[in-house]
Amino acid sequence: MPERPELTVQGWGPPTGRVATVAAREGTDDGVLELAPDVHLGRTLPAGARRHLSRELGWTPRSTPPVPLAEVQLPPSRLDPAARVHLVALLGAEHVADDRTTRLAHAGGRSYLDLVRRRAGDASDAPDAVVFPADTAQVAALLRSCSQLGVVVVPYGGGTSGVGGLPGTDVDDRAVVAVDLRRMADVHAVDVPSSLVTVGPGLRGPDLETALAAQGLTLGHTPRSWEFATLGGCAATRSAGQSATGPGRFTDLVAGLTLATPTGVLTLGTTPGTTAGPDLLGLALGSEGTLGVITELRLRVRPAPRRTVHEGWSFRTWAAGLAALQRLARHDLLPDVVRLGDPDDTRATLLQGRGPGARLLRARSRTRRQGGGCLLVVGWAGLPTIVQARRSAAASVLRDGGATRLGRRPGQAWLRSRTAAPYLRDRLMDAGLLVAELDTAATWTQLPAVYDAARRSLVGSLSTSGRRPLVLTSVSSAWATGAALALTVLADRDDDLPLQQWLTAKRAATDAVLAAGGTLTHHSGIGADHRPWLTGVAGAPGVDVLRAVKAQLDPARICNPGVLLPD
Amino acid sequence: MPERPELTVQGWGPPTGRVATVAAREGTDDGVLELAPDVHLGRTLPAGARRHLSRELGWTPRSTPPVPLAEVQLPPSRLDPAARVHLVALLGAEHVADDRTTRLAHAGGRSYLDLVRRRAGDASDAPDAVVFPADTAQVAALLRSCSQLGVVVVPYGGGTSGVGGLPGTDVDDRAVVAVDLRRMADVHAVDVPSSLVTVGPGLRGPDLETALAAQGLTLGHTPRSWEFATLGGCAATRSAGQSATGPGRFTDLVAGLTLATPTGVLTLGTTPGTTAGPDLLGLALGSEGTLGVITELRLRVRPAPRRTVHEGWSFRTWAAGLAALQRLARHDLLPDVVRLGDPDDTRATLLQGRGPGARLLRARSRTRRQGGGCLLVVGWAGLPTIVQARRSAAASVLRDGGATRLGRRPGQAWLRSRTAAPYLRDRLMDAGLLVAELDTAATWTQLPAVYDAARRSLVGSLSTSGRRPLVLTSVSSAWATGAALALTVLADRDDDLPLQQWLTAKRAATDAVLAAGGTLTHHSGIGADHRPWLTGVAGAPGVDVLRAVKAQLDPARICNPGVLLPD
Repeated sequence: MPERPELTVQGWGPPTGRVATVAAREGTDDGVLELAPDVHLGRTLPAGARRHLSRELGWTPRSTPPVPLAEVQLPPSRLDPAARVHLVALLGAEHVADDRTTRLAHAGGRSYLDLVRRRAGDASDAPDAVVFPADTAQVAALLRSCSQLGVVVVPYGGGTSGVGGLPGTDVDDRAVVAVDLRRMADVHAVDVPSSLVTVGPGLRGPDLETALAAQGLTLGHTPRSWEFATLGGCAATRSAGQSATGPGRFTDLVAGLTLATPTGVLTLGTTPGTTAGPDLLGLALGSEGTLGVITELRLRVRPAPRRTVHEGWSFRTWAAGLAALQRLARHDLLPDVVRLGDPDDTRATLLQGRGPGARLLRARSRTRRQGGGCLLVVGWAGLPTIVQARRSAAASVLRDGGATRLGRRPGQAWLRSRTAAPYLRDRLMDAGLLVAELDTAATWTQLPAVYDAARRSLVGSLSTSGRRPLVLTSVSSAWATGAALALTVLADRDDDLPLQQWLTAKRAATDAVLAAGGTLTHHSGIGADHRPWLTGVAGAPGVDVLRAVKAQLDPARICNPGVLLPD
Repeated sequence: MPERPELTVQGWGPPTGRVATVAAREGTDDGVLELAPDVHLGRTLPAGARRHLSRELGWTPRSTPPVPLAEVQLPPSRLDPAARVHLVALLGAEHVADDRTTRLAHAGGRSYLDLVRRRAGDASDAPDAVVFPADTAQVAALLRSCSQLGVVVVPYGGGTSGVGGLPGTDVDDRAVVAVDLRRMADVHAVDVPSSLVTVGPGLRGPDLETALAAQGLTLGHTPRSWEFATLGGCAATRSAGQSATGPGRFTDLVAGLTLATPTGVLTLGTTPGTTAGPDLLGLALGSEGTLGVITELRLRVRPAPRRTVHEGWSFRTWAAGLAALQRLARHDLLPDVVRLGDPDDTRATLLQGRGPGARLLRARSRTRRQGGGCLLVVGWAGLPTIVQARRSAAASVLRDGGATRLGRRPGQAWLRSRTAAPYLRDRLMDAGLLVAELDTAATWTQLPAVYDAARRSLVGSLSTSGRRPLVLTSVSSAWATGAALALTVLADRDDDLPLQQWLTAKRAATDAVLAAGGTLTHHSGIGADHRPWLTGVAGAPGVDVLRAVKAQLDPARICNPGVLLPD
């Protein structure tokens, strides 16, 4: 098994050097992550940012480290010996693991709720065993066997789910086996003229990019979890990614895939441009393991861009920023990367930055008295002449919309720190904070109301005497008909009832967002956490269709039954 | 009921003036259809083209007009009186029709096979009755009632299906009711900031464009059938359209829709940017009436382009043309319209054209000895600066690929004649010709082999002593991973066995295309004609998934059971 970076059991873990790879690939000047991998908040967060958080939140930093790993409670494996023998016969003894270390390493995902539980020493969501199949045939055989054995199967890619997508327990108390796809991580074929590559589902973005770079190609999908997320996982959860405004949205990059199910292997969407009936590929994308395991992917790649530009602009108000983005969107002038911070998000960005870019931006903001303004980061990639034409057309729309150009340093700073937030989350949790996220999308017409509804609900739920949360919101991607909002919530953690504190707030905010016309999620998926709302958004007949498809492919309900579909 | 142009019972019918509207909208110089609506081939086709066809095909023009309309045989309606009473109670007597004229007007689609049958006086594929519901609630009630009554329901939009998508007979000999959606043809809402419009399924493209033009907007979907095709029909069949290389592919234009089914009403995809589970919208697109009736559509529109350019280029060889298009595709430089004719197609285009553009092109071809060359028509639409940047980047790729620029006249000529072929087909059939079509798509790598396989098979099947077919092939749209091929087949018709003549050739060509890696269809859909191949391309497990979805939504199998899914 090739060595590869892994998340820590109780958090995101120290940076691995891969962050620098992203930055360097995107053409930044130094490629060094500004956020130091220190364990002490004092060295991780600038003093100004710490003071700002304390003042805003009514929070005093305190030491709340995770319990030592040796003290994490792991229930005994429910996998019965006869079933284990079956799995060993299928895959070989070295590819079936139920030791403590392996089970812990595959316990759940990396949502705030996941981390709260595991930092408190609770790994009851760990699978009963982990298997490492080698190919489609082994996965198909595994699914057939597990159907007969009554063993639940949960595909395991990078382990980065933020919505409880990797439950290790079953409502019917069956044994749960995680299917780790790391052995299926090869590049199988590259068709340069057709801009297509065929890969195993366990391959990670950085490894694919390394292989493609040798041929002058790139995939260009960069989710925040990109150091760890597998490409199969990106497909199963409809990953958006930070270049989703341009060509980087994962569902648009999947030309075809192989889905092994308990009742057969489906090969979907392999020939482009077909109109032969309904689109079954779209059923597999976003199926989150409930229909089977994605065992191969055919992805659209493109020539590595000859020119990449990222730059910053500032708006006086959020409304002005939204209006300008909407105008760009209508006229097909959106850059490939769009990230517009609201005033709270912008202030946090400026306080957090350490490099010369951040200092410059802070100085400019002070000079221009735009402290309450909104920072827009935009990025283009492609042929120089096309980038130039798109960029100057966009610039005139932005200027007409009242924006001021800040130059390239804010763009570089964003590139350097784009995968940093989960590392910072670990440190902030160490210091007693709730750090959680929410994401949605809406039409341009409904976006302002969705923004207001989400913020008002979160502030209301998480405010207590002397304490209030900070809600940092940004437009994370945009398209002609609407845009996505990413919300990061910071609050003094209730150490007695940390799970309930966030669950209550999240539930109310989700209800409020849906009532205002927002989507249930833009980039997180459904997992276990969003299940209760699925019927509301897909409608009962829609959920019945999904159930019918699942009944056809997975009659024994062994494929990740704890996610997506309501009980 | 608003007056609107209709197809003739036995063909496509005389032009209606709408063709000129397309041309004018696209910025052509005169907006006049060059192809005169004459009934005599002598006045429809230039003498040079007639001579060329006679020589190539071994065909002598002869008069084979359709039988008089009064002699067309229509079987008695199978709709029993009790069921008719039910339908009248639901919809009102004036919205249930089973008279000869209405039934004939709704008989089948407009494939070559359809026309051969009806020109010979056979309308056995006519529905037993036609109903005209007013809204989603009436359609839903109709589907519930027909489920109980055991009456088959076939949604009827524009009647332009080219693959037998509108069968009026049922394998179980149940009565068949066509659901004509012309009363559901309103624009319900326009959300300008979000670039979205909500419309009824019976609305036609020209009427939507007229409504949008008042607000400076356009949909930009232009299938060849655009005078007649309804937007609901475009969704149900995954219409491609002639601007499918750019933003005009219909599936990309549908943001959401309402699907009335016998077991409930589904509202799909209404909020953009969601990743909440698998994509159910993609199941409705291309479902061809087998899951229910699309009763409302939410479509993406855009500002009417400020600049539109169409121009012609010529290549010495087909291989050079494909190579240049592939290079444009790889580098994201494809124009919005791409149409590359092969040598046979190009010769036919040049011979057929009558205007000054065609004369110019012929003269240039002779001068440059490029008679065997390939004509490429490309078009761009958008903001002037962006069009300019994309166009000059594309021009340098085309020049590097050996192409010669022919100027704008070939582009204008293409625009003027883009909806003309079906009219010409009527006249050619009057004169004793087989005029049929085939379409496919493939990756760039497989495209040359697919082209060769299709041509070789068609020529082989349709050649007899002294006669051989002409196969006119063009790349009709392109994208990063591949391109679509549209093939028009002309041959001396076998008047004794005209159906078998084409069925035999089509069957062999389809087998050959699939074996070479092409899709079953790119823009026609499945209908009845492509059903036998669906299992081969979607796989048995894929077809089982479609069957499971249908069983869930349409347990009595009343929704267009004669199309899409194999028996």
